[in-house]
Amino acid sequence: MRIEVVTIGDELLLGYTIDTNAAHLARQLAAIGVEIVRRTTCGDTAESIAAAVGEALDRSGAVITTGGLGPTSDDLTKPSIAALFGRAMVLDEEHLAWMRDRWATRFQRPMPEANVQQAMLPAGARKLVNHHGSAPGIWLEDERGRWVAMLPGVPREMRGMLADTLLPIVASRLGDARTVVRSRTLRTTGIGESAIADLVGSLSQGVGEVGLAYLPNADGTDLRLTVRDAGPGEADARLADGVARLRPLVGEWIYGEDGADLAEVVLSQCRARGITVGVAESCTGGLLGARLTAVPGSSDVVQGGVIAYAYEVKTSMLGVPAAMLEAHGAVSEPVARAMASGARASVGVDAALAITGIAGPGGGTEAKPVGTVWIALDLRGVVEARRYMMVGDRAEIRQRSAQAALEMLRRRLLADGRQAGTQ
Amino acid sequence: MRIEVVTIGDELLLGYTIDTNAAHLARQLAAIGVEIVRRTTCGDTAESIAAAVGEALDRSGAVITTGGLGPTSDDLTKPSIAALFGRAMVLDEEHLAWMRDRWATRFQRPMPEANVQQAMLPAGARKLVNHHGSAPGIWLEDERGRWVAMLPGVPREMRGMLADTLLPIVASRLGDARTVVRSRTLRTTGIGESAIADLVGSLSQGVGEVGLAYLPNADGTDLRLTVRDAGPGEADARLADGVARLRPLVGEWIYGEDGADLAEVVLSQCRARGITVGVAESCTGGLLGARLTAVPGSSDVVQGGVIAYAYEVKTSMLGVPAAMLEAHGAVSEPVARAMASGARASVGVDAALAITGIAGPGGGTEAKPVGTVWIALDLRGVVEARRYMMVGDRAEIRQRSAQAALEMLRRRLLADGRQAGTQ
Repeated sequence: MRIEVVTIGDELLLGYTIDTNAAHLARQLAAIGVEIVRRTTCGDTAESIAAAVGEALDRSGAVITTGGLGPTSDDLTKPSIAALFGRAMVLDEEHLAWMRDRWATRFQRPMPEANVQQAMLPAGARKLVNHHGSAPGIWLEDERGRWVAMLPGVPREMRGMLADTLLPIVASRLGDARTVVRSRTLRTTGIGESAIADLVGSLSQGVGEVGLAYLPNADGTDLRLTVRDAGPGEADARLADGVARLRPLVGEWIYGEDGADLAEVVLSQCRARGITVGVAESCTGGLLGARLTAVPGSSDVVQGGVIAYAYEVKTSMLGVPAAMLEAHGAVSEPVARAMASGARASVGVDAALAITGIAGPGGGTEAKPVGTVWIALDLRGVVEARRYMMVGDRAEIRQRSAQAALEMLRRRLLADGRQAGTQ
Repeated sequence: MRIEVVTIGDELLLGYTIDTNAAHLARQLAAIGVEIVRRTTCGDTAESIAAAVGEALDRSGAVITTGGLGPTSDDLTKPSIAALFGRAMVLDEEHLAWMRDRWATRFQRPMPEANVQQAMLPAGARKLVNHHGSAPGIWLEDERGRWVAMLPGVPREMRGMLADTLLPIVASRLGDARTVVRSRTLRTTGIGESAIADLVGSLSQGVGEVGLAYLPNADGTDLRLTVRDAGPGEADARLADGVARLRPLVGEWIYGEDGADLAEVVLSQCRARGITVGVAESCTGGLLGARLTAVPGSSDVVQGGVIAYAYEVKTSMLGVPAAMLEAHGAVSEPVARAMASGARASVGVDAALAITGIAGPGGGTEAKPVGTVWIALDLRGVVEARRYMMVGDRAEIRQRSAQAALEMLRRRLLADGRQAGTQ
């Protein structure tokens, strides 16, 4: 089934509200096999609602709207769409009585008369129950089977009504031959979008009937495989096949699937080997520690660390020699190594990660431009360090640096594990 | 001027990505007097792009698109829209040379051949400079003056190109009689939405012709004032009047306006008084340090800190007595105070903020449920501490804790400043 979504509201169009309903609707519908083929956002006027919904109905015959069901005068969704179907608005006495009762018992005062409008429904409409508010949803259908389902705009109400009422109705209309849209995502880091495309080679156009999308972000590049127009079982099988073909090509650049977080992956590796972790952060200022400790249950691995923003703190708390800072500068290989080893000793951990770099916007030089970052790892006395040239603004450079540090530890533990396995 | 926006990408349509570009575009355009009358989101196929952009062009004659300008094969925006205008795709030698040069100098390796596609432009197109990536934006216009501006989908690139290049072009096409939609936002923290409504009293319905909205979030509650349908000068005057009437009612709960960041506000206060800052973080694990150092130029105030996640680190690096930890637990007033004073001494700063709490989801008890957080401040030997009961999930509790710590320092500096002023 192909449907369109129309989200209604000046707040959305003016950019004061981010449209999270649209993403939620899409994910929920895709999971039962409904594909959203287009989404439109329009303002709160009767004409713009009628135009947007009318055009969507002409294209696809099946439309879900959100917003414009409230009691205020700018809520025009119902009458605008009723007019499209040639229906009058009629008072639903049953719903009015329910609302008056709800105000009396729940709020212990009379219902404001403005709310009567919420009981005006298009003739012949089916009500969709709202367990989280007073505006009912509406299902309107014509003799040719074309339909519009109207949901509230308040996310909590929309989500409840979708799950409780609308998804079952839509699912009941899908035949046995229903097809789904399903995805799996392989998460990579440390490699660019185009370099992955080179690795993937001829599969980059898609793996068989599985679509392949590259999604670069500050944590790396995600590879999303998507199957459309297949039954649920077949979709899963095709995705499994696509993943099986891609994994050998991309290899260890992949750190996880779907919602995987590199910090969580690294923590699991460390936990399995009884390795404790600490950090020494200069330009990231705590971001790496914050990422590690964002993971619930991280306290069995993460012991703590030092935010060594100033020269003096690098010296006093991490034991970096002042002469070394003088000779090489804070953003240098020897200092990164000394920070890692210093943190391992002072925090008292098996593995310490150190980051020192120039996040900008100021502070860059010709020899060390903004984006220059040294990262070091001291794992039980074996120290490695690497220079990175990070792109992006200050926030991105910091985010990429924390991610690169985690990746350095992940790679080391993988390599150590392989070596242990071959001995 | 009425324009439409088309955001392109399967990930938007499938709900994998929330469409933040759309909101940003809308706010920036509204501020110069351009109204977005409809927004459409379509998938990554050539047909759906051509249909969505073609219909938008027919309706409004002015369209901005985001997405689909990258180097991979799923990026079809340019050829689809070129076809709508009856234009061929031609290689822009100048841009190709620029890209090859950028790879050679910046990444020190040859440009992947996949990137050549980014230099293919519709014939007769005007390039929009991209200072943040390698894909240029495109301005395509026909002999009737109908135009499409194509921006990248990566938010940082889109925002940069919009500000640097597209907004000036669009502004140059506006007449004199334009009306704008403008807003100002007062940012508060430490006070709930309904408590602010009580302070604001009768103004809560709006200040004259200025609309007022309450926007609660994990950093506090923002008060947004909005003026519509006024000329630029009148809109600014009305907003100034609204702000002048609200400020006395809400008072010191307001820490800034619009995009103000509490960390930046606190850093300015500290800088003005020559106060250096350090942190001692348990449950936030570096988040407070990360927030402070996210601000460019923070290094003259922020010296560093200790991430004291484990008991042993609280003892060894902050000097918290083991007996105190035993007697009171890590989440307690004495430990928070000892952490702050320990950090002030070991980091060597004027002011140290300490956070210790239970961020969940595990670790709560009846006496100290999840959300219990102690925050302490040691400013030149004068220590204060306060217990908070934070609501939300782990991420929110940590975010609220960092914000509350910053607010504790801001309030102390305000109070000290007042005292100094009256003496």
